[in-house]
Parts: sequence; structure tokens; C-alpha cells
Amino acid sequence: MSTPMSSPMLKEQLLTLDNPVFCCYLFWATVLVVKMLLMSLLTALQRFRYKIFPNEEDLFFKNIEVQFDDPHVERVRRAHRNDMENILPYFIMGLIYLSTDPNPTVACNLFRVAAVARILHTLVYAVYPVPQPSRILAFATMLLITFYMAAVVALRTLSFI
Amino acid sequence: MSTPMSSPMLKEQLLTLDNPVFCCYLFWATVLVVKMLLMSLLTALQRFRYKIFPNEEDLFFKNIEVQFDDPHVERVRRAHRNDMENILPYFIMGLIYLSTDPNPTVACNLFRVAAVARILHTLVYAVYPVPQPSRILAFATMLLITFYMAAVVALRTLSFI
Amino acid sequence: MSTPMSSPMLKEQLLTLDNPVFCCYLFWATVLVVKMLLMSLLTALQRFRYKIFPNEEDLFFKNIEVQFDDPHVERVRRAHRNDMENILPYFIMGLIYLSTDPNPTVACNLFRVAAVARILHTLVYAVYPVPQPSRILAFATMLLITFYMAAVVALRTLSFI
Repeated sequence: MSTPMSSPMLKEQLLTLDNPVFCCYLFWATVLVVKMLLMSLLTALQRFRYKIFPNEEDLFFKNIEVQFDDPHVERVRRAHRNDMENILPYFIMGLIYLSTDPNPTVACNLFRVAAVARILHTLVYAVYPVPQPSRILAFATMLLITFYMAAVVALRTLSFI
Repeated sequence: MSTPMSSPMLKEQLLTLDNPVFCCYLFWATVLVVKMLLMSLLTALQRFRYKIFPNEEDLFFKNIEVQFDDPHVERVRRAHRNDMENILPYFIMGLIYLSTDPNPTVACNLFRVAAVARILHTLVYAVYPVPQPSRILAFATMLLITFYMAAVVALRTLSFI
Repeated sequence: MSTPMSSPMLKEQLLTLDNPVFCCYLFWATVLVVKMLLMSLLTALQRFRYKIFPNEEDLFFKNIEVQFDDPHVERVRRAHRNDMENILPYFIMGLIYLSTDPNPTVACNLFRVAAVARILHTLVYAVYPVPQPSRILAFATMLLITFYMAAVVALRTLSFI
């Protein structure tokens, strides 16, 4: 399409299913949302396994009291908190980055690598702890990807400060 | 409209006020944002009521020290953290789900039920604790709705993996 | 453009780079995402400075044990949690507010003030603690802006309840 309308029409379609980069974002963001919600269930699993509950009304077993410092439960909660600290800002950053019409190949690969890195982060942190620097590398991967997206967007929108 | 243009035009309007499903999402997402921010104020209320402050510079009363383990304050903070763990991913999931052009009646009802469930969750957790399984049911409602949306989106976008 | 098409076309362009208000949101949201991610690095810095690590696999120095209650580390973590409680709902609220086509001057200034307020909040909370009410004022600024946006959106979408 080389009509005068082509450019604005393409732009309008950035956040629709007509844009394969948006579809790629949708898929991997969905994977990460599901991964995050499974952390809640993993926490619940650990609570029942080790009978550690934080509220009076949650004491489903006899002769137990509220307890807060169990290492198995707290490890999953730290992993979950780390997810919130990193994945939630990434969701917004990814959406924002998408709306600046990035290179499709670069964008799709960033979405894929970031999602896989966070799945690995959860595995080496909350499921089966392994020695460092495995967790640091998984953590740094999404962090650097988010910083890269931020740099791209900031340069594109600097004149609207 | 049965012109060849109708389908892409409809899609472009998904994230605008012309789409009543989007308006429904806007309204209930706004309700949940306000509900979440009120948790901050509820925490502050509990802190002043029981004179429990976590920072040296917050000691607004004489002869008190920083303190971290008050059950009244911690209960509200746990409810607030649970909000972040569940409502924030839901916001993104809802927006993503919307952009896949879901059935309007199903989508609107999911938005309504999810919002009401989380308001009930706050009431039975942080405001007036009641025996289980009231909180578990309120928690599971939004969790299942988010999983349903994730399944719909993942199936729609599976070819863009 | 005074054709019958002009109104819907303008609406469709709200979430594109053609809309300067959207660009302003993009820029300041990016600033806040970067600010939030720097909190992770600030926490890591404090952990290495005071040799406080929460996991067995993180004990990078000899003769130290896992530890959770260091005031320097916990202060940064509280500031980071406060960011998540306030900035993440604000991201969604800002995007929603944008899609209701607000007054451009008002919207841009709200985005600017909110971002600067949260940067100040971090400085007076986590970097260099100063007496109250400096932190309360910085906190209240974004809170009130988010409430204002919520009120605007709720009034616009009340009929879609």
C-alpha cells in the first residue's frame, strides 16, 4: 500500500490481532500471567505441606498456631515478590514498546527470551534451588530487556517530556 | 456494514470508548484500582490506631519505637499484597483478553464477577475476618476468571509463539 | 477534517504515537518503570554493602548466614513495595484515563507531576531519609492524581456498569 492513508492505518493496527508482533506479546504475556498465578498455588501447596498459616482462620489442622518464618514458604514468597517487582513493570513496558512500532523480529525475540528467562528464574529459585549465578543470570535477562525497551521508548518520546 | 472494510474497522475500535465491552472493563478496572489504593489508607489507619510505625521518621507519638509485627497492621498488609499478586496480573490479562474481541456478554459478566469477588475478598480478609472458606472462594473466583481469559488468549495466539 | 469519519478516526488514534498526550504518558511511564527497576539494584547494592542475604545460595562471603531484618535493606524494600502498591495501579489507571480522551494539558501535567512526585518519594524514603511530612506529601500526590483519574473515568463509563 503506497496510498497517503497507509502510514496512519498501519499505526492504528499496532494494538490489534492484525499485528503479529502484538499477537506474540499477547501469547508470552499470557504465559507469564499464568506463571505468576501459579506462584500463589505453589505458596498454598507449601503452606499445606508444612502446615504454616498466617491467619487464625486458616488453621485447618489441629494444634497448630499462626507462623510466619518457615523457610520453604518464605522462599516461594520471595520468588513471587521478585516476579511482581520485575514482570509487572515489564508488562507495561512491553505494551508501551509495542506501541512505538519496533522492529518485528527484535521485538518478538525479546518477548520470547524474557518469558523463558523468568520461567527459568522461578525453577531455580522456588522449585529446585541451584547455586548462583543461575538465578542472577535469569533475573538480569529480563531486567536488561526491560531497560533496552525503556531506552527505545525514551528516545522516541523525548520531545514530549 | 458489509463492506470489505468492516472487519478491520471493528477490530481497530476494540480499545476505544465506542466498544461497550471496553467501557465495562474501564469501569470495573477503575473500581479495583480505587479499592487497591484504599488498602494503603486502611494500612495507614491501622498504623495510627495501634501506633505501629516501621520508620524512625514516622514516630508521630512520644515514647514509641519502630515495630513490624502487629497482627492488625500485618493482616491488612497481607490482604494488600494478595491484591497485588492477583489484581495487577488480572488488569493486563483483562486488557489482553479484550483485544482478542471476546463475546461481549461473557466478557462483561467476567469483569463484573471478578471485581465483586475481590471486593468481598477484602471485606472478609482485612475489614471483618470471617471463617474460611469465604476468603478462599473469593480468591478462587478471580483466579479462575484470569485462567479462563488466559486460555482463550493462548488458544487465539498459539500460532505466534 | 469535518467529514463524518473524523470523530471515530480521532478516537482510534488515542493509543498511537500520533497522539501527543499518549507520547507524554509513554515517556513518563518509561521513567517510572526505570525508577522501579533501579530499586532492585539499590536493594542488591545494600545487600552487598551490609552482607545481608536471604537465601543459602546467595552467601557470597565467608562466615555469614541468611539474615532478614537489616534496617538498611528493609528500608529500600519497603520503598520498593510502596512503589508496587502505587505506581503499578497508576500505570493501568493512566492508560485507562488516556483512552477516555482527556484534556491534553491537564493529562500531560498530571503525568509529569505524578512521575516527579514518585522520584522524590524514593529520594526521601530510600536514598536519604528526611523528616516527615516530605514522604507523606510525595506519596499523597500520586495517590490524589490516581483518584482524580479514577473519578473522571468512572463518571464517563458509569452507564456501562
